[in-house]
Amino acid sequence: MAEKIRIGIVGHGNLGRGVERAIGKTADMRLVGIYTRRPPETLTPLDAETPVFGMADLPAHTDRIDVLILCGGSKEDLPKQGPELAGLFNTVDSFDTHARIPEYFASMDAPARAAQRTALVSAGWDPGMFSINRILGEALLPDGATYTFWGDGLSQGHSDAVRRVPGVAGAVQYTRPIKAAVDRVRSGERPVFTTREQHLRECYVVLEEGADADKVREAIVTMPHYFDAYDTTVNFITAEELARDHQAMVHGGFVIRSGNTSDENTQVIEYGLRLNSNPEFTSSVLVAYARATHRLNAMGQHGAFTVFDVAPGLLSQKSPEQLRAEQL
Amino acid sequence: MAEKIRIGIVGHGNLGRGVERAIGKTADMRLVGIYTRRPPETLTPLDAETPVFGMADLPAHTDRIDVLILCGGSKEDLPKQGPELAGLFNTVDSFDTHARIPEYFASMDAPARAAQRTALVSAGWDPGMFSINRILGEALLPDGATYTFWGDGLSQGHSDAVRRVPGVAGAVQYTRPIKAAVDRVRSGERPVFTTREQHLRECYVVLEEGADADKVREAIVTMPHYFDAYDTTVNFITAEELARDHQAMVHGGFVIRSGNTSDENTQVIEYGLRLNSNPEFTSSVLVAYARATHRLNAMGQHGAFTVFDVAPGLLSQKSPEQLRAEQL
Repeated sequence: MAEKIRIGIVGHGNLGRGVERAIGKTADMRLVGIYTRRPPETLTPLDAETPVFGMADLPAHTDRIDVLILCGGSKEDLPKQGPELAGLFNTVDSFDTHARIPEYFASMDAPARAAQRTALVSAGWDPGMFSINRILGEALLPDGATYTFWGDGLSQGHSDAVRRVPGVAGAVQYTRPIKAAVDRVRSGERPVFTTREQHLRECYVVLEEGADADKVREAIVTMPHYFDAYDTTVNFITAEELARDHQAMVHGGFVIRSGNTSDENTQVIEYGLRLNSNPEFTSSVLVAYARATHRLNAMGQHGAFTVFDVAPGLLSQKSPEQLRAEQL
Repeated sequence: MAEKIRIGIVGHGNLGRGVERAIGKTADMRLVGIYTRRPPETLTPLDAETPVFGMADLPAHTDRIDVLILCGGSKEDLPKQGPELAGLFNTVDSFDTHARIPEYFASMDAPARAAQRTALVSAGWDPGMFSINRILGEALLPDGATYTFWGDGLSQGHSDAVRRVPGVAGAVQYTRPIKAAVDRVRSGERPVFTTREQHLRECYVVLEEGADADKVREAIVTMPHYFDAYDTTVNFITAEELARDHQAMVHGGFVIRSGNTSDENTQVIEYGLRLNSNPEFTSSVLVAYARATHRLNAMGQHGAFTVFDVAPGLLSQKSPEQLRAEQL
């Protein structure tokens, strides 16, 4: 057995804790430390023996770590931390602000190249596994159409938007694909949908004392960008119900490509995820891509990469020979 | 626009004809010739202007062709043709005898390496897209189980086996996944199935005149390896019904990985295909991998490769920059 791949984790929110768990499920990796902006002694790792360090310790630890998994957020953390750390370590992150990926990619590519490091950006499931399936579907069926459906799932961004409405004490928002739309796509039709025809939005809201339910509902369903283009239902519940029934971070969805290989023959490809824990699954994707990143770096592949650049075999714990013999 | 990738086709059965159609769906490839063991003038290409050549012309055409797509069968054609042609051309094939893949891979690797050519072996959907999803599922959810279901679909090998039974004038065999088994797997359970519990086999048989239906049925359902481990139904139909209702080469199936990222959280990944034409879809996969093979060769990647070695981005007609900006 080769040496285990030495992993460091930056950040200890849902994603960082998921990475701790995911490393525990592998046979070829070990966690060498968690790095945090908080006072290290306030953080409780899953395994009490995992050392916890401050961020300031990172530059002195470049020889201890093969791949650093960046578990910060895309808005505040990664744009600043990423480029700093990409010049010191091989990194993997889940940067997920789709529109800013080219800019983030460039900001990681330059320092990683200069330091002969490898930075795998925007891993996860969307961006990530869904993106892979979007481009594979298009490559295999160029005469076709691609549909991405999200849900049933709890959307963090939309839940936050509801929580910012005056009069709301607590809330969650679920995104649900509309079954009739899914059925049409699965049949091989290539329908053109309005936003409203593809997904529903369903809110569970706890009101502040004295808040006007109708006003809150109206403020939510007409909220530009977040809700106005959807059919949105708002259900008022108690704080107890919110705590009891709506804590699971379920999510998922599917990418469907339907296309024709000839006038007569329609073909349908579907990739779907049903996730009981959105952050834990994302963490598992990060850990698999950490293995690939370690290998890419060993192959002399320096700079920034995305999931589009990673051959499937590089994600596996098995050797190429074993994969060909057992799993092709 | 760059020069189009110049493709040659070897063999003009269902697969070769599918490749002709699939090239017509791309913007970056052109078909330069079809090569056949038959007298070239007896072959009718889809596009009357496509030149048809004998196999003996191939060695003189190495400068005309960027990638040669081998559309022969795995039993007789590829083991002989493949190693001969891999020393002359970049090649793609759909070698699908799972147990003999390592041996075939080695027989393609040596001549391709020696000639600085690239040979992509065993592309298609199984082996191929299903194989990719089996290893990705395992890499993302190492604590889990993988299930491959085939069907509803027409199985060529099993149809042939039925046709060899004395008294059978014509036949097709459909493989169907058992819904109860699929549902259990989708729920995140990790059941252990017997062969019989996962798939049904359904035969439609035309009897020869005077043949004994009961004897034929018994010979089919007890046939070792092909049918004895399954619940098999045999339906007797007329030659007219066979010709009218059972010509479509439908197939498909799904690969499901279910696993736990923690004790509490089960995650389910599913990749599915619903194919109206099995050979046309396989052909489309071959054509997408021909693009990747051309690029691998240009990158100096010589020798034999499988779908496990090909990064998703290499299959796309789009540039890496465009993919990152539009589809991540």
